[in-house]
Amino acid sequence: MIKIGIVGGTGYTGVELLRILATHPDAKLTAITSRKEDGLLVADMYPSLRGYVDLAFSAPEKAKLTECDVVFFATPHGVAMAQAPELLAAGVKVIDLAADFRLQDVAQFEKWYGMPHSCADVLKEAVYGLPELNRAAIKSARVIGNPGCYPTTMQLGFSPLLKAGVVDAASLIADCKSGVSGAGRKAEISTLFSEASDSFKAYGVSGHRHTPETLEQLQRLTSDKVGLIFTPHLVPMIRGMHATLYARLTTDISNEELQALFENAYADEPFVDVMPFGSHPETRSTRASNMLRLALHRPDNGNTVVLLVVQDNLVKGSSGQAVQCMNIMFGLDETTGLKHVPVMP
Amino acid sequence: MIKIGIVGGTGYTGVELLRILATHPDAKLTAITSRKEDGLLVADMYPSLRGYVDLAFSAPEKAKLTECDVVFFATPHGVAMAQAPELLAAGVKVIDLAADFRLQDVAQFEKWYGMPHSCADVLKEAVYGLPELNRAAIKSARVIGNPGCYPTTMQLGFSPLLKAGVVDAASLIADCKSGVSGAGRKAEISTLFSEASDSFKAYGVSGHRHTPETLEQLQRLTSDKVGLIFTPHLVPMIRGMHATLYARLTTDISNEELQALFENAYADEPFVDVMPFGSHPETRSTRASNMLRLALHRPDNGNTVVLLVVQDNLVKGSSGQAVQCMNIMFGLDETTGLKHVPVMP
Amino acid sequence: MIKIGIVGGTGYTGVELLRILATHPDAKLTAITSRKEDGLLVADMYPSLRGYVDLAFSAPEKAKLTECDVVFFATPHGVAMAQAPELLAAGVKVIDLAADFRLQDVAQFEKWYGMPHSCADVLKEAVYGLPELNRAAIKSARVIGNPGCYPTTMQLGFSPLLKAGVVDAASLIADCKSGVSGAGRKAEISTLFSEASDSFKAYGVSGHRHTPETLEQLQRLTSDKVGLIFTPHLVPMIRGMHATLYARLTTDISNEELQALFENAYADEPFVDVMPFGSHPETRSTRASNMLRLALHRPDNGNTVVLLVVQDNLVKGSSGQAVQCMNIMFGLDETTGLKHVPVMP
Amino acid sequence: MIKIGIVGGTGYTGVELLRILATHPDAKLTAITSRKEDGLLVADMYPSLRGYVDLAFSAPEKAKLTECDVVFFATPHGVAMAQAPELLAAGVKVIDLAADFRLQDVAQFEKWYGMPHSCADVLKEAVYGLPELNRAAIKSARVIGNPGCYPTTMQLGFSPLLKAGVVDAASLIADCKSGVSGAGRKAEISTLFSEASDSFKAYGVSGHRHTPETLEQLQRLTSDKVGLIFTPHLVPMIRGMHATLYARLTTDISNEELQALFENAYADEPFVDVMPFGSHPETRSTRASNMLRLALHRPDNGNTVVLLVVQDNLVKGSSGQAVQCMNIMFGLDETTGLKHVPVMP
Repeated sequence: MIKIGIVGGTGYTGVELLRILATHPDAKLTAITSRKEDGLLVADMYPSLRGYVDLAFSAPEKAKLTECDVVFFATPHGVAMAQAPELLAAGVKVIDLAADFRLQDVAQFEKWYGMPHSCADVLKEAVYGLPELNRAAIKSARVIGNPGCYPTTMQLGFSPLLKAGVVDAASLIADCKSGVSGAGRKAEISTLFSEASDSFKAYGVSGHRHTPETLEQLQRLTSDKVGLIFTPHLVPMIRGMHATLYARLTTDISNEELQALFENAYADEPFVDVMPFGSHPETRSTRASNMLRLALHRPDNGNTVVLLVVQDNLVKGSSGQAVQCMNIMFGLDETTGLKHVPVMP
Repeated sequence: MIKIGIVGGTGYTGVELLRILATHPDAKLTAITSRKEDGLLVADMYPSLRGYVDLAFSAPEKAKLTECDVVFFATPHGVAMAQAPELLAAGVKVIDLAADFRLQDVAQFEKWYGMPHSCADVLKEAVYGLPELNRAAIKSARVIGNPGCYPTTMQLGFSPLLKAGVVDAASLIADCKSGVSGAGRKAEISTLFSEASDSFKAYGVSGHRHTPETLEQLQRLTSDKVGLIFTPHLVPMIRGMHATLYARLTTDISNEELQALFENAYADEPFVDVMPFGSHPETRSTRASNMLRLALHRPDNGNTVVLLVVQDNLVKGSSGQAVQCMNIMFGLDETTGLKHVPVMP
Repeated sequence: MIKIGIVGGTGYTGVELLRILATHPDAKLTAITSRKEDGLLVADMYPSLRGYVDLAFSAPEKAKLTECDVVFFATPHGVAMAQAPELLAAGVKVIDLAADFRLQDVAQFEKWYGMPHSCADVLKEAVYGLPELNRAAIKSARVIGNPGCYPTTMQLGFSPLLKAGVVDAASLIADCKSGVSGAGRKAEISTLFSEASDSFKAYGVSGHRHTPETLEQLQRLTSDKVGLIFTPHLVPMIRGMHATLYARLTTDISNEELQALFENAYADEPFVDVMPFGSHPETRSTRASNMLRLALHRPDNGNTVVLLVVQDNLVKGSSGQAVQCMNIMFGLDETTGLKHVPVMP
Repeated sequence: MIKIGIVGGTGYTGVELLRILATHPDAKLTAITSRKEDGLLVADMYPSLRGYVDLAFSAPEKAKLTECDVVFFATPHGVAMAQAPELLAAGVKVIDLAADFRLQDVAQFEKWYGMPHSCADVLKEAVYGLPELNRAAIKSARVIGNPGCYPTTMQLGFSPLLKAGVVDAASLIADCKSGVSGAGRKAEISTLFSEASDSFKAYGVSGHRHTPETLEQLQRLTSDKVGLIFTPHLVPMIRGMHATLYARLTTDISNEELQALFENAYADEPFVDVMPFGSHPETRSTRASNMLRLALHRPDNGNTVVLLVVQDNLVKGSSGQAVQCMNIMFGLDETTGLKHVPVMP
């Protein structure tokens, strides 16, 4: 059994980790920290976990995280980098669900997250935790920077096109839509039910943290200069993320060849489902599961390919992907504990 | 492995059965019928099942249901009673998720469902599939009438009070609220998104089919004449059911004794969670799981007890309960394949 | 033109007052206060008001409220009673949308609102602003305590029955459901979209502030002792309130007589719509309007009458009712500025 | 008073016309037809109209539409063109909310709507009813083809850029999102609450009827060949439409100049609100009103301009725009009966 610690289990990625790990056959929840909720039973905060999780939150100093095999950080940005060195020194693996270990470019990190990066050396060895594009490195990693939710959809969508060199890398457009849980479990006016429901809006259009992360990763796939317009939107739904991706074809390629590009790229991937050409995946078809689905379109048979990508932002977009990384790091079957059938309706 | 057939798998209780059975370790989906969708892959209708269910719908006459061990009917009222005799004759067990085998009083059935009952003899041996109140009979049953969703909450709520004889059986009130999936997957104006969302209403207040079913069962628990006002309402949510139950106390009883009544009644029940006195269960704490939760209140310490009962109407209120019955009928651990942690948020 | 001041216009009842008053033909918005937002254009906080309201928020000391004809308080409890004496002294009428002037019983006020009442003399002359039951007093009032949202539905529902003496006043039950906007525009976890949507729950079942308010008013209608069980619930919708009221008939009365009781009581009321016996009003049929609709049921023709009452909690349940009171106080046609057709769908 | 007839008032654009016209000071509802609902009071189908509309539906042959001044068609495609000639001959003006008179290119009409066009001569004189781009023609029109909802947002967004010649007309992208009411009031599985809520999807990505309509109109604004990728999506909200528009700048232009382009274009428009550069309009800021709002962005100060456009699909996107056209046609102030403050929250 893998002994597991969670730092900051009171937010949505934390409780989703708990949901997944509670029935993971090789995981043993050992400690979960929250200074504010020290002593509170996890199931008293989250009645959905009654009968499944009997741990209580404990203050960090009591939590004995160094005795764990792996520690997940489901915390605000900046927490993982403060605690990672000590854990690594004790032989504990670290998976950060926030942004501390996502961006190798420290200047970009500091610009977008408004704080200095406190452990550049750990960052250097950190591995970007997107299994489909980075599996080998994850296998031997000690520190994982778990991808952002939007970047997961953009990378798994654009990568087969960029690798094949069939699109103009400089003019990618990603029009993305997220459920409200992506904003986290924070008391804020703008995500109140009465503000966010029965309405739709864009946000961060002039600039968003997930753009540099996605650019850094996409640039690894091509020698052409990558350019990306990324427009996030808020959808009145709890979970779910939909990316509508636009790329201009630069070569003569048939729809069948396009489709084959994707089917070949993901033929062995348990969590990427390439749907029939021209279909319209719904976010709910991935609800509460680690599956990402995508489909290709080519309006009017012109030179623009339109990609539709869906996932559950809290699973494949966050906690599920983190557990997928853990499975790889510990030599388990990658799907262990992640075979949840999507909840529909 | 239990060989399973499903008749009518295109509605919500059907697809929920599929979701549950797809990962049930002792179940093997063998046939699923739909005359209209003959030949269509189940996963083409329900992409959420891609990778989990590779069966196609088949017309009833091709489906070889008599080779199954058990057949679930997730059909409109009237279908199960037409096919049950042949299946039983072939040694197949039958679990009906509709109403054909719920009401022992045939006149009541015919009044509320508007059709003659075609097999009174099968009805006579049919067992009402509410494990917490009827487990022994389910164990040896060949035919199960799976309870209605509302009746499940009303019975599990009222029964400890009625058995203990501490309330006035004649003046029970059940103010119940259901998510829209309870209306099924039928093309109707009144359950369109634009009609049912951002609104709330009661329906069937002057009379509803679940009243006679609940009365018949509650009456089994007490020699006093049971009277029940049942008011169903439609909530703009997909899944979830909340019953607010009112009963007048007729004896001097403390809150601690009331709470103990319920804790004792459900001490060994894996799917009934008695929450602390005075708490407020939310429907989402049971989402996509087979758990029912309840809590007691006593406003102003007066003589009215208020019970709050929540469940997922498609799981404990329907398909999950049916699988729970199946587990009992086939001698499995009752929780097999039903350990889904509720999805929150 | 009536010169109008609003104290605390940043919450939902405040912005709803602005929506209504912006097109009221006899109202002139003169001042709106908010210390925190001093100088901010109202339309910059609420883009829905762009082109309709060109006022800016101003700090209270700059707002010259004493030059207004009437001041509305859309503030937390306790603010109106602190400022009312000065305004009254200056000849300004006061309408409080909070609870400061609702409860004549000061001890009850202090128990439920957790603060001393600072101006008992003003309270003594304050008038409870429910026009249908209190119109004459409102006409000559200087201070209005605008009713709570739930109490409006409960009083307009129960009052014809109590006045006629046909029900047992001691055993009233009100099972009520409110949209989330009723919780106000406050940054809180429990009313976040991801917490409150796709779920349903009761709250405050063991005791709620609206019970004493309702009891005090209902008791004015009958010499029998009134007893009330009030159970509020939260519905995943923005606006809308549904009260399901239960009363036991104590006399032999036909359904036609019951219906006539209500039709007569509200024959001349512009904002109470008695629907046909046995119908099911939906909250959306009142959305964004000042109309309250109700319908009667009598299950199984027994001795329980079930009343369904719907309104928009922010209009008839709050800001619309306050403007209705203002119209009466200033001798205008009561419907002036309140003829909004409900928004459907 | 303008005598008004409505053909087909049972759908969402019909009931929205009724909501608007019920309080329009110069409109008199004279007849509303529905063969199926002949004799039914409109307010019995739509209780929201109780007290505002006392008409009953009548079969077309009884409706005396030729005595009206104007007839609105809120019908499926194909109905208006069948009845328009007779009405025009009788001197009645016609406003069609469906597509019969939108596309001057008959071949395109027949391709996309799957029916022959039965009155090409009427089509020839028909005027496209987008006031901001076509006001003069509307003023003298006898027949109006009211624009589609999506095309309204795309045209009002792109037109200032195309007229000024500052973007590449050949590579426009419109990623659009609509509330579910856009699908109409039809009994269909895909728009059931349990299908469409808490989920998000694209549809019609490979081709949609609103593309040819938008192309035909945009092409009138520029001599360059217009190319457009249009991707519609379904948002789990009732009303509201959000267009995210992408255009590539072909000239050196500052953000201030871009903003000025739009502010000048719409300076005198009562129903187009150009918001500050870089802001994020929400659909709810236009709910139940005829206002369209837009804002410009320029990510990273690069060569792509991103436009955010919002409206209520049933008002400015349909019935409100139709009334705006009527006001123009009959010489009224264009805003008559259309000054609804958006409903927020």
